[in-house]
Amino acid sequence: MKVLITGGAGFLGQRLARELLARGALHLAPHGASAEPEPITELVLLDVTRASGPDDVRVRIEVGDIAQRDVLERAIDAQTAVVFHLAAIVSAQAEADFDLGMRINLDATRILLDVCRARGHKPRVVFTSSVAVYGGELPEEVQEDTALNPQSSYGTQKAMVELLLCDYSRRGFIDGRALRLPTVSVRPGKPNAAASSFASAIVREPLNGETTACPVSGATRVWLLSPRKAVQCLVAGSEIDAAALGERRTVNLPGVSASVDEMVETLSKVGGEAAVARIEWVPDERVEKIVESWPASWDTARARALGFAGDGSFRAIVQAYMEDELHVPHKRH
Amino acid sequence: MKVLITGGAGFLGQRLARELLARGALHLAPHGASAEPEPITELVLLDVTRASGPDDVRVRIEVGDIAQRDVLERAIDAQTAVVFHLAAIVSAQAEADFDLGMRINLDATRILLDVCRARGHKPRVVFTSSVAVYGGELPEEVQEDTALNPQSSYGTQKAMVELLLCDYSRRGFIDGRALRLPTVSVRPGKPNAAASSFASAIVREPLNGETTACPVSGATRVWLLSPRKAVQCLVAGSEIDAAALGERRTVNLPGVSASVDEMVETLSKVGGEAAVARIEWVPDERVEKIVESWPASWDTARARALGFAGDGSFRAIVQAYMEDELHVPHKRH
Repeated sequence: MKVLITGGAGFLGQRLARELLARGALHLAPHGASAEPEPITELVLLDVTRASGPDDVRVRIEVGDIAQRDVLERAIDAQTAVVFHLAAIVSAQAEADFDLGMRINLDATRILLDVCRARGHKPRVVFTSSVAVYGGELPEEVQEDTALNPQSSYGTQKAMVELLLCDYSRRGFIDGRALRLPTVSVRPGKPNAAASSFASAIVREPLNGETTACPVSGATRVWLLSPRKAVQCLVAGSEIDAAALGERRTVNLPGVSASVDEMVETLSKVGGEAAVARIEWVPDERVEKIVESWPASWDTARARALGFAGDGSFRAIVQAYMEDELHVPHKRH
Repeated sequence: MKVLITGGAGFLGQRLARELLARGALHLAPHGASAEPEPITELVLLDVTRASGPDDVRVRIEVGDIAQRDVLERAIDAQTAVVFHLAAIVSAQAEADFDLGMRINLDATRILLDVCRARGHKPRVVFTSSVAVYGGELPEEVQEDTALNPQSSYGTQKAMVELLLCDYSRRGFIDGRALRLPTVSVRPGKPNAAASSFASAIVREPLNGETTACPVSGATRVWLLSPRKAVQCLVAGSEIDAAALGERRTVNLPGVSASVDEMVETLSKVGGEAAVARIEWVPDERVEKIVESWPASWDTARARALGFAGDGSFRAIVQAYMEDELHVPHKRH
């Protein structure tokens, strides 16, 4: 079978690609069926920039604008069993450029769903949704039945796609799964235009001996998932039996709730006070407003019952980063 | 000021037009301001079919496909203070023709919002949303913070537009209000392609001496609002101060919860057993499935606090129909 990753040149797309190639197969048969996992014969990495790898005979790299139908028609055919749709304009950028956000986050996704529908074989579509679909007055712990009330254009676009994906699934056009991701941290590399970019930067930069600006206060609480666990959740999201999801195609993935102060405290344990001193506190109201509209925690009972697993603690998240990106071996405590 | 009604040839559009012309003005100043209501100098009735009236010097009739931008650009200019966006493909039709529903209920609305945005004066947009945005497992009484989980393409499209309208309002492109209407009944005229069409027909046809088929069981409970009160709510929705709405641009309008059996009982009191005998019970699973996914009641505290008023009872709804459409004078009991 073929698998497509949109945003395949991105950090999460690249990690997911490596994980899928390492596994070599996906188990898409209904739960309880004894069928062997089906081998991945082709992995298409589609992005607006050329994916740099992985170097593997199964990988096909496609470059193009996903808001153009022909690009998606080239990437999806009747053998495409799973689409991981990660491509997106991130939160602060979608807030700064409304039309670009609508074009990529909403219109391109709709074209993707329509191309899947036109192929006629009901492929699985794993869509990465976000904490940003929630907002406004929220209960301390968001529940599965808490109303969406996004306070950003990014969150609005993600929520609209969730609705579309549910309806396309209900009608039998696709077999969709919308996974609501916590803020994925600690990401390697450079800061990006996501409002949540600081959550990675305040750990990553100080550990690299670099200074970083934190735009939110220490009391700000965020809901976090490591890249390692995020990738495992994406794979699990593709393998889960549609019947297990029932009438609800959205899943609130497991996360760890941590305040910025708690994150800094963990940083001090791992990198010492010198690392903490590399954080400059530069409040940015624009970022604060977006981040504080997001839930700091949600109920994960459904996700866990469906077999999704998150991180054990913020310390474990930092440990995963050090192992996966800095190649610091795991120490037993 | 100018006012636009899309779906202006429809039943509700026509009634709203008559109400607005009778009032002659709308009070759009912030709450507490002493300004006089502003006179309506032009009322544009836009529809895909030609509105038959009202015959009034202030009325301008426009015919066109609202999914075409130039049609909306003709209908909306910088003097358009209020847009009542009623045009829609109704529930059962949007379920039968997915692409048509998407084109009119989603795409056309987005073009409408974009034309309003391009005009730059932040017009008020009163959008008629629906009970159909809810669905799935629901509490006995739906609350303001109950998650949307539409089980029809119509409900999905309405929910997507609500999100869009909230974001356009938050960004200051428009001043939007999404009024979630109960099933509007008793409507005069012929049955239509709405799944809820029976709710009007089982009262209207028997009182007219005609037979009608009821596609749902007597136990089916529906959430109802008379056309008279619906029109008053639409006008109130245009006049309400944006600040009073707060961060939530949706309002669950007041309704009356009645089972089909209770409706039939009221019919027997008004029209006798002969009227009841004109109902044929012909279950239609397709209609039942849609209607039973809708809430049978919701909490109306917020709507009432905002000044929206519904009907007192199902008997009052039937009375309103008899007065407004059959011109039977009101009897005191």
